[in-house]
Amino acid sequence: MFKKVCIIGCGLIGSSLARAIKRNHLASKVVSSNRSNEVNKKVIKLNIVDESNSDTRKMVIDSDLVIIATPLSSYKEVILKIKDYLKENAILTDVGSVKENIIYSVERNLPKNISWIPSHPIAGTEESGPEAGFSELFANRWCILTPSTKAKKKDINLLKKFWEKVGSKVDIMEAKKHDYILSITSHIPHLIAYNIVNTTLNIQDENKSAVVKYSAGGLRDFTRIAASNPIMWRDIFIQNKKNTSKMIDKFIENLEDLKKAIENEDEKKIEKIFIKTKKIRKDIIKAGQDIEKPNFGRK
Amino acid sequence: MFKKVCIIGCGLIGSSLARAIKRNHLASKVVSSNRSNEVNKKVIKLNIVDESNSDTRKMVIDSDLVIIATPLSSYKEVILKIKDYLKENAILTDVGSVKENIIYSVERNLPKNISWIPSHPIAGTEESGPEAGFSELFANRWCILTPSTKAKKKDINLLKKFWEKVGSKVDIMEAKKHDYILSITSHIPHLIAYNIVNTTLNIQDENKSAVVKYSAGGLRDFTRIAASNPIMWRDIFIQNKKNTSKMIDKFIENLEDLKKAIENEDEKKIEKIFIKTKKIRKDIIKAGQDIEKPNFGRK
Repeated sequence: MFKKVCIIGCGLIGSSLARAIKRNHLASKVVSSNRSNEVNKKVIKLNIVDESNSDTRKMVIDSDLVIIATPLSSYKEVILKIKDYLKENAILTDVGSVKENIIYSVERNLPKNISWIPSHPIAGTEESGPEAGFSELFANRWCILTPSTKAKKKDINLLKKFWEKVGSKVDIMEAKKHDYILSITSHIPHLIAYNIVNTTLNIQDENKSAVVKYSAGGLRDFTRIAASNPIMWRDIFIQNKKNTSKMIDKFIENLEDLKKAIENEDEKKIEKIFIKTKKIRKDIIKAGQDIEKPNFGRK
Repeated sequence: MFKKVCIIGCGLIGSSLARAIKRNHLASKVVSSNRSNEVNKKVIKLNIVDESNSDTRKMVIDSDLVIIATPLSSYKEVILKIKDYLKENAILTDVGSVKENIIYSVERNLPKNISWIPSHPIAGTEESGPEAGFSELFANRWCILTPSTKAKKKDINLLKKFWEKVGSKVDIMEAKKHDYILSITSHIPHLIAYNIVNTTLNIQDENKSAVVKYSAGGLRDFTRIAASNPIMWRDIFIQNKKNTSKMIDKFIENLEDLKKAIENEDEKKIEKIFIKTKKIRKDIIKAGQDIEKPNFGRK
């Protein structure tokens, strides 16, 4: 599919993608660039990529596909480094969770012949780093492309096929819509999980061991999400701050409403809300976006 | 261990307990009482209990251990029905998630010789009903006893052993402390999950299919908890409304604080919170209260 693919940042997503490319024979050569020499050595040792070096310029040279898989806050630095070393007519993509802001800031700095097509694979785990990756991470997950005006049609089709080859289903969407939808399905759930665990930590004091002990009552589910990569998520909230703020307001409004219903012992109102929320789980399972087993199949 | 055990309400918890009693040979006879004749027939057919009848009085007669496993709002009715039919010196327990209010209201109505020892097994799934139960539900989970002043010491020990035989670890605690701790580890996480799914449903409108499609970005975890038994949870929040209200206020306070940090792009503050919340997951896994596999082992 490609002669040379360069992945900038071999964390959970970058290293999973490198593995998936190798496993599915989608490139003759896969290279990566990481700031840390330790990581560069590790990804070679683990046979995740063929070559890896902290000199990003050197790695992107001759690459047909370049994938930025670093936190959003480092995009600017990455682009300034690589822009003059990209192969003519190369495809440039990323795997970031926010699109609208970055799509234009990257575009401005690119040579005209580069097809800049941001990608967002809706996949991941609470773990971080190259050891945490695996080639099946993208299987049966959606990947959203938000092509820039500089993207060639044939390249969009090629990148779509690429994601399909690693197991994803692909949607093409406007960046603005992407950021709105994802703030609902991903960003706010993460923020709420971070906030509930933070609230718990702030109040537990002398009851710390009790909170850990009895976490199977519900809290443990939130601690999984709140164990996600802190830098990555910090950047996501800041980059999508307008949608995040609006959603927080709506969330608090609903929570205040629910609090009032509880204080007033308004059984009917509470029941009505809880019956409504029960239904969406079935739709998600039917859509293949979660497993049907109770407790996520945990024992 | 017991000659006859009566379970009032064979839902997820009640039926799991009946199965665990049979499997571990903890009683010569297990009976249950359910309002619905359909359920009474079902639990006999599934061989979950030896006898089942909607006439609760008839079922509790001669039982050494009576377990109330109905929603909290029905306790009053149940107690008024059974109080004159309980065996002398019987142990009465429940499996409810809130203790302080009910402990006294039940106590007031009981004959003096009854050992009233509320139990709270910190176990469950998002499913409901007798088919959803299984005998291993309590394995490696904590069960908290909050004995009333009417509980005999020997009965507390016996009930503790009973829970240990079904696989639980047992703690004894004051009802007031129980309600406080559980509001943190269980009630608020459930309320927040209900609220985030409700908020999502309120705003999704034309984007409904998108929300379901991309739910693997985080939302799907919350929909599991928000699929829990609506009546049971409605009762929990109302019965523990003081703690619930206080915790909601603290949660909102922290969320407003986080919102401000995002709006101000205060990277350091956000990062600090997210690094802190990452740590507790490890403690929970170490304590055996969740599995170590990423994504709860989901594929």
